[in-house]
Amino acid sequence: MIRTSFLQDLLATIFERSVDRPPSHDRRSLAEMCKALLSERGEASGTLIAAAILGRYEAASAQEKRSFFQLLEWAYDLDCESLIGAAETYRRNRDSNTLSELLRAAEPPRQELLRRLNRVAGATGRLVKMREDLLAMIGDEPSLRCVDLDFQHLFSSWFNRGFLVLRRIDWATPANILEKIIAYEAVHRISDWDDLRRRLEPPDRRCFAFFHPAMPDEPLIFVEVALTTEIAASVQQLLSRDHAAIREAEANTAVFYSISNCQRGLAGVSFGNFLIKQVATDLSQSLPNLKSFTTLSPVPGFARWLSSQVTEANGDVERVKSASRILEASSPDDLEQVRSETLRLAAEYLLHAKRSDGLPLDPVARFHLGNGARVERIQALADTSSKGLAEGRGVMVNYSYDLNSVEANHEAYIHHGEIIAARSVRALLGAALAQHHARGTQNA
Amino acid sequence: MIRTSFLQDLLATIFERSVDRPPSHDRRSLAEMCKALLSERGEASGTLIAAAILGRYEAASAQEKRSFFQLLEWAYDLDCESLIGAAETYRRNRDSNTLSELLRAAEPPRQELLRRLNRVAGATGRLVKMREDLLAMIGDEPSLRCVDLDFQHLFSSWFNRGFLVLRRIDWATPANILEKIIAYEAVHRISDWDDLRRRLEPPDRRCFAFFHPAMPDEPLIFVEVALTTEIAASVQQLLSRDHAAIREAEANTAVFYSISNCQRGLAGVSFGNFLIKQVATDLSQSLPNLKSFTTLSPVPGFARWLSSQVTEANGDVERVKSASRILEASSPDDLEQVRSETLRLAAEYLLHAKRSDGLPLDPVARFHLGNGARVERIQALADTSSKGLAEGRGVMVNYSYDLNSVEANHEAYIHHGEIIAARSVRALLGAALAQHHARGTQNA
Amino acid sequence: MIRTSFLQDLLATIFERSVDRPPSHDRRSLAEMCKALLSERGEASGTLIAAAILGRYEAASAQEKRSFFQLLEWAYDLDCESLIGAAETYRRNRDSNTLSELLRAAEPPRQELLRRLNRVAGATGRLVKMREDLLAMIGDEPSLRCVDLDFQHLFSSWFNRGFLVLRRIDWATPANILEKIIAYEAVHRISDWDDLRRRLEPPDRRCFAFFHPAMPDEPLIFVEVALTTEIAASVQQLLSRDHAAIREAEANTAVFYSISNCQRGLAGVSFGNFLIKQVATDLSQSLPNLKSFTTLSPVPGFARWLSSQVTEANGDVERVKSASRILEASSPDDLEQVRSETLRLAAEYLLHAKRSDGLPLDPVARFHLGNGARVERIQALADTSSKGLAEGRGVMVNYSYDLNSVEANHEAYIHHGEIIAARSVRALLGAALAQHHARGTQNA
Amino acid sequence: MIRTSFLQDLLATIFERSVDRPPSHDRRSLAEMCKALLSERGEASGTLIAAAILGRYEAASAQEKRSFFQLLEWAYDLDCESLIGAAETYRRNRDSNTLSELLRAAEPPRQELLRRLNRVAGATGRLVKMREDLLAMIGDEPSLRCVDLDFQHLFSSWFNRGFLVLRRIDWATPANILEKIIAYEAVHRISDWDDLRRRLEPPDRRCFAFFHPAMPDEPLIFVEVALTTEIAASVQQLLSRDHAAIREAEANTAVFYSISNCQRGLAGVSFGNFLIKQVATDLSQSLPNLKSFTTLSPVPGFARWLSSQVTEANGDVERVKSASRILEASSPDDLEQVRSETLRLAAEYLLHAKRSDGLPLDPVARFHLGNGARVERIQALADTSSKGLAEGRGVMVNYSYDLNSVEANHEAYIHHGEIIAARSVRALLGAALAQHHARGTQNA
Repeated sequence: MIRTSFLQDLLATIFERSVDRPPSHDRRSLAEMCKALLSERGEASGTLIAAAILGRYEAASAQEKRSFFQLLEWAYDLDCESLIGAAETYRRNRDSNTLSELLRAAEPPRQELLRRLNRVAGATGRLVKMREDLLAMIGDEPSLRCVDLDFQHLFSSWFNRGFLVLRRIDWATPANILEKIIAYEAVHRISDWDDLRRRLEPPDRRCFAFFHPAMPDEPLIFVEVALTTEIAASVQQLLSRDHAAIREAEANTAVFYSISNCQRGLAGVSFGNFLIKQVATDLSQSLPNLKSFTTLSPVPGFARWLSSQVTEANGDVERVKSASRILEASSPDDLEQVRSETLRLAAEYLLHAKRSDGLPLDPVARFHLGNGARVERIQALADTSSKGLAEGRGVMVNYSYDLNSVEANHEAYIHHGEIIAARSVRALLGAALAQHHARGTQNA
Repeated sequence: MIRTSFLQDLLATIFERSVDRPPSHDRRSLAEMCKALLSERGEASGTLIAAAILGRYEAASAQEKRSFFQLLEWAYDLDCESLIGAAETYRRNRDSNTLSELLRAAEPPRQELLRRLNRVAGATGRLVKMREDLLAMIGDEPSLRCVDLDFQHLFSSWFNRGFLVLRRIDWATPANILEKIIAYEAVHRISDWDDLRRRLEPPDRRCFAFFHPAMPDEPLIFVEVALTTEIAASVQQLLSRDHAAIREAEANTAVFYSISNCQRGLAGVSFGNFLIKQVATDLSQSLPNLKSFTTLSPVPGFARWLSSQVTEANGDVERVKSASRILEASSPDDLEQVRSETLRLAAEYLLHAKRSDGLPLDPVARFHLGNGARVERIQALADTSSKGLAEGRGVMVNYSYDLNSVEANHEAYIHHGEIIAARSVRALLGAALAQHHARGTQNA
Repeated sequence: MIRTSFLQDLLATIFERSVDRPPSHDRRSLAEMCKALLSERGEASGTLIAAAILGRYEAASAQEKRSFFQLLEWAYDLDCESLIGAAETYRRNRDSNTLSELLRAAEPPRQELLRRLNRVAGATGRLVKMREDLLAMIGDEPSLRCVDLDFQHLFSSWFNRGFLVLRRIDWATPANILEKIIAYEAVHRISDWDDLRRRLEPPDRRCFAFFHPAMPDEPLIFVEVALTTEIAASVQQLLSRDHAAIREAEANTAVFYSISNCQRGLAGVSFGNFLIKQVATDLSQSLPNLKSFTTLSPVPGFARWLSSQVTEANGDVERVKSASRILEASSPDDLEQVRSETLRLAAEYLLHAKRSDGLPLDPVARFHLGNGARVERIQALADTSSKGLAEGRGVMVNYSYDLNSVEANHEAYIHHGEIIAARSVRALLGAALAQHHARGTQNA
Repeated sequence: MIRTSFLQDLLATIFERSVDRPPSHDRRSLAEMCKALLSERGEASGTLIAAAILGRYEAASAQEKRSFFQLLEWAYDLDCESLIGAAETYRRNRDSNTLSELLRAAEPPRQELLRRLNRVAGATGRLVKMREDLLAMIGDEPSLRCVDLDFQHLFSSWFNRGFLVLRRIDWATPANILEKIIAYEAVHRISDWDDLRRRLEPPDRRCFAFFHPAMPDEPLIFVEVALTTEIAASVQQLLSRDHAAIREAEANTAVFYSISNCQRGLAGVSFGNFLIKQVATDLSQSLPNLKSFTTLSPVPGFARWLSSQVTEANGDVERVKSASRILEASSPDDLEQVRSETLRLAAEYLLHAKRSDGLPLDPVARFHLGNGARVERIQALADTSSKGLAEGRGVMVNYSYDLNSVEANHEAYIHHGEIIAARSVRALLGAALAQHHARGTQNA
């Protein structure tokens, strides 16, 4: 038996409030309304003006929106003089009054403006869309990034993991949520409702998403999971129409085969780390037979790196030849011919190719290693979709999450730049290279 | 028919997560754990450490808690040098990178520490309790107020009105919520469950509370409302055991007769203004016969002010005699004898007695006038409880909320210090004093 | 604000209980188990045996199922001797003891057997499926209809309208319910999820279903409604991909364009009448602008009747020619040529063609007229789907439900065989025929 | 995580529908309205008339209600002639048509009348109240029992265990449900909300109730459970204000210390058996440490039986003396003096005192033994409340429910009149009497 009643009603109210949005008849300009919104000290009518600003913004043209952001940039920026003055006062005389003054001076007024806009019921999602517009304009006009700093600061606070709610997504989930799952899936496209159903309904499939109570119809991020009896070696196999489901009690492995962010307006507010760990924790409680939690992840930068190896040609003729052969393979059958070279170079790419800041070149590797996962296995011919062949030459990687060692792995990765990998993965590199990883070995 | 399903499930999950709280075996000191929590860049284990800190804090002695706050004060304060440096850099070279550096330097690291603590499921309510502890220590140790500035800053953001949920409280509300209503009622004490029931169950009674989704079992603030056919003149009458309820359709007036904050840890984060206006809006939609929204409010500073008038004795013998008579009345019957003098001096107290900052002396008046309400009527012998007699000599005030004029009233109050009052209230002052209020007249 | 909490939890429990169904290890035959189920006086283990019987039945072959029903037929029938004896005793001596004996003797023991089977959590839906099997066998073996009488009797009691729950079906309804809507739509096929969405999501579309609390995942019957500004004249237009939605407040007419039963196992337990009236009542409350409630219904027997007219050839040469022309039309364009003849003969078919029992020949007409609706309008070229052309030669009918006159209409229909029709419909018949309807005129 | 959404909404709708009950303006007499309700064949307006009948009934005087039931008795009784005729026809010619006619004739028309009344939203609970009225009149007017047979028949079908929902009742249950628990507790009175809370909130307490979806605010029956580390020997100890709760994981025993029916109008529709077994099943799943499920039950007929033993004086002087001493004890201390005699005679009462039908004299014993429980232990001085002393001389009984043997126990009880009791209980009888129970021994 469950007990959910009173708590549930809370959200119902959120929903109701957000339904109707009567038009405002405020005739002031956006600039005037923003000024009024901030200047109202007692705030008797704050919500009305805020609602009017949001409505006006949403009806605005692209040019008007740009002007609005420019306004935020110059009219609501920090006042450096006051800030420096307040900081010097506080330095001389540290007490709560001087600190209070300093903190007030240290925050761009934009932040308070955004907080007041957020008072309107249902505003949070609308501010996320507003930031989506803003991000799209920054390319042309980098100075707007200053405005974005404040959006990002507030969103990080509002979308704190403690406020997020994990929900299972399944075939009994409302269709309006499910269609967003179809739309947002970014890794392995969901072709239609039948495809979606194959990912949700079988007893060996799971999907989970984070939601925020103020945006209950909008998943923030979701992960798709397959329950299996071995580490998955091919995504096409996992998603096959002919897949024969196993009973959940038979499964010993949870394969996270896709993780997708849903809200461009929340870029830079990271949820993925928390999502994977929460899902792994929950699954291990409800299905105690599960022993291993692993991903089946793309290697999106592999083909590009191979090309760079060919052109850079820094002496190692053998490797250039291998890279060329892999790049020239025009079919899965061709790739099968160069399987061992592919695995070796993929291992090298993952374990040694670094950016200038010392972090791995591959973005997916950076994400999982940064979370404390380790490179468990490299799989050739694991993604034979056109995208998988083009970007990763069919290669995929299993990163494994051992909840007992993620912290140590993460520590080693952050402080020592170590990439923790299974012995078998390091073995692919051959003897010489493997020495570089002596330390990592001990962790594996 | 209603549609609440998916949304509701969200909160169910919140609830579940917050139930069990396994003990931590982390042996580091609170100081070490705080350092670890902030230093973990990739944050692989942030939630575990955060949970351990919260658990350790809650099990700590008063002295240990004090030490913890002291640690927050000195070890996680702003670095003025860096801040001034960053501000000067930004002044010289305004771009998003320099601004980003400046914003980082301008925030005490305490804030990020609190945000990371909040990642733990159910942490929000625990942080509110933590601040309650902190506030209790500030009296002795005012320097801790610096720490409180950060709590207050974060709570203002997290408890933004846009995240709050309004809920009706009635006789079908879970008992664990209702007992909190009994406990938190601060204005007119609820003596037991039968008394509570008399305030919730009759068709002419309402109660509403704000909740936050991360604290679904904890009302933040609530208001009790009586639906009547005239402006209420006595709280004892309203709460009488023999009260004959009217049908809701008969009512033309909603009397807000009690409003209570529930969380001391949220002091300074104001909800009351939003609550009254939201409830007035919702009631006027669901009960279109309601024409007037008014309070029945105490005048907690009246007796004290009368005393001051007697001792100050600034010449006006008549007024000193009146004040003395009112103060000497030892029963409702006595007070009945001085009814007109009481009303006159109460009007003077409300409309003219000011603090040094120019705002009204009476705290309840400050609250409602600051919200844009006006003084509608002054009622003698309206609260004959011992507290009502002691603090307010039985006087209560009806402040009325006219949603169409709150903004203008508020404006006049904030910018011109005007106290909007009904003509009949001003008339109590007598001709001479009334002239001071010429402008106010036009609004009434 | 809404209040649904405790009530909702109730059903949650129903759901949980019905999830897992551990296999029984009872080795007795179905016949033995049925005997045990009924003979257990104190019923200590009733639920276990009942669950075992249900499980065994569902795993049985078609032949075994047939044997089971045959068993129910002969072994659990009424004992006529006892019944007659008890009836005679009661006739002589009317008291509650003799009546009690009589009532016991007057009920086939099958009914108690079915009631005991229903004690198992989730059994109700399984018994509905069981009757579906039974109905399929009755064609071959009419004697099984005796068993069905008891199913039907119990289901009429269990699915009493007072136990049914009306739910709106929309785009936020769970996908597992929606796919049943797609599957069960019997009138105007739903081709895919996009088609479904066009019927649910626009602001001028509604869908409602009845559910039973013991079968919460299974709609029993549903109706699809279009909100329009005039009586709909074509179903293709209503369902058009290019349909431009109107705002709900603009609508003055609700068109019930499809009503489908979902459970073959509930045949003969009628919900449609209640559904239409409940939906009309609810819609008129929530959308007070709605003035007319009407159907857009097929005329499934029209083409067949036309054929019979041609072959019967009872003298009216003109009508035979008309009927032939209509039947020979091979395209909508052809039918356009015979529009007025089609309307005239359709009116004759609806208003005059009767079965031997005096009720209308057309089954859809029988349903709506039996509910108290009236024939409002006949539309030519209203359903140009292949089915619509084949069965109804493109004709559709608007039956209107005026909640104030359904009772009188129904009375006239039941007691006097009158078919209430709008004046314009009767006018189609021409002067001579219209005289038959003089009385009906007064109602229109 | 849980999934309850769509299902929950269903009940919400039930609730809403049942809220408002517009008055009817039907001026016909109750008798005329009943006739109309049954005669409406097509039933176009059935719900309206039914609602009017219910409203009229509820507003009626006691005398009018009596007349209404008398009307049901004579005007809607079986027609014996038709019934006998139909039975003879069916005897001669068994087919589904003749059976259908027979079944129609074999049911008093009252049943169909009640079914049609039940179509009104929320009617089920109102019909239960109607039967409560009826039962109160039967004492005076036994012929009304004929009407009650039909109520009971329908309620047994409608309140089939498969339709009931088990709900935990705890401190987060709505107050309007909780006050019914206070009111309905029939065994150990709940004195106030604090007493209630002591039975619901501690981690070692549980309470469960059955509900019917059509009466979601009305518990039908509930059981209170204490989780303990040993079989409870005193109800005062269990309910003590100073009770120190244990953690639920420590408990090995669940003590059902109170079970109360809530609806007098459902007398004779038995739920208790199902409730105990369902709760035992659910508890054993959620708390696997629980090994024993036992009651702590009153022995309400013990004092009366003792008195009969004294007066009957059938020769055994010793026993008469014992019974007298027990009856004369005027305090718990006195009773302590006759503890062993009390236990011996209580055992005799439970195991040997029989009614004329061979079933145990004690009603509580009949209930639990009929459910398949066994007499586990007899406790002296276990209920020292005035009621416990007066009726049971302080004695209470632990009946134990072993889910694996209830069926066999029940069988032996029903078919062989055996009372299964633990060896230690039988040992109380002394050697001679114990021989009667040789068989029982093997079960213990």
